Amino acid sequence: MGFGLIESKAGRLSALKYGVWRTAADRPLEQRLLSIFQEMESTVGLYRPEEVAVEELFFNRNRTTAISVGEARGVVLLAAARQGLPVYEYTPLQVKQAVVGYGRADKQQIQFMVRAILGLTETPKPDDAADALAVAVCHAHSRRPARQADGG
Amino acid sequence: MGFGLIESKAGRLSALKYGVWRTAADRPLEQRLLSIFQEMESTVGLYRPEEVAVEELFFNRNRTTAISVGEARGVVLLAAARQGLPVYEYTPLQVKQAVVGYGRADKQQIQFMVRAILGLTETPKPDDAADALAVAVCHAHSRRPARQADGG
Repeated sequence: MGFGLIESKAGRLSALKYGVWRTAADRPLEQRLLSIFQEMESTVGLYRPEEVAVEELFFNRNRTTAISVGEARGVVLLAAARQGLPVYEYTPLQVKQAVVGYGRADKQQIQFMVRAILGLTETPKPDDAADALAVAVCHAHSRRPARQADGG
Repeated sequence: MGFGLIESKAGRLSALKYGVWRTAADRPLEQRLLSIFQEMESTVGLYRPEEVAVEELFFNRNRTTAISVGEARGVVLLAAARQGLPVYEYTPLQVKQAVVGYGRADKQQIQFMVRAILGLTETPKPDDAADALAVAVCHAHSRRPARQADGG
């Protein structure tokens, strides 16, 4: 699971930390979820973000994947809720429009803009980390005052 | 989300508690997940179960539902992991075979057998609670020594 923390100071955005949380595929599911939850809790505890933004998920792949990703996403949202952090969701289209200004932007265009906007000296890797930073930039650029869950 | 707690004493099964955890559809998703997590934590704290069994999910419905159900399931599995409880998973087919002895049993047959096995004076309601008790009975009847996650 990719994550990215950014900071806004005097209208400029910068990246504080980004990367991916990995879990061992041979461990029991509940232990893997616990690991992601603990990563999220310790990251939130260390960096004290004010808000959390996640991408709304759409799947063209199989439903088993959708359930698994939902499980991981659930524990991240839970960690946010337990810290009293508001959660915002953005569709992939919103992320592209906010970061590149173009809803059909490809992965390279997004990564190029994320790097430029955050003043990074290299393209963030792996892709999941770059995607997470893009969501964070999207949120910084398009802060909505509130959000309603649309299901769940 | 349905839940059911059962006890095995001298080879006899009985129901300690069952029901459903509901959350308000108009609340933010992360608050709904927090609510389910807290219900699970308080139920585990009160009844001190030794093991947790959940149904493996298969979806014929839309993927958005699969993600949402995955999110709720994720926080329940997390609560189990945080208490050090082992989690077991059963397919709907395994549940039917363990409870009714017949993989194509319908909902009424399952509910009839759950009621009989647990010595309940009436059929557990709503269906989600009855389904949860059926998974618990399945686990009691077919305890496997260990489990491997098959994804996630």
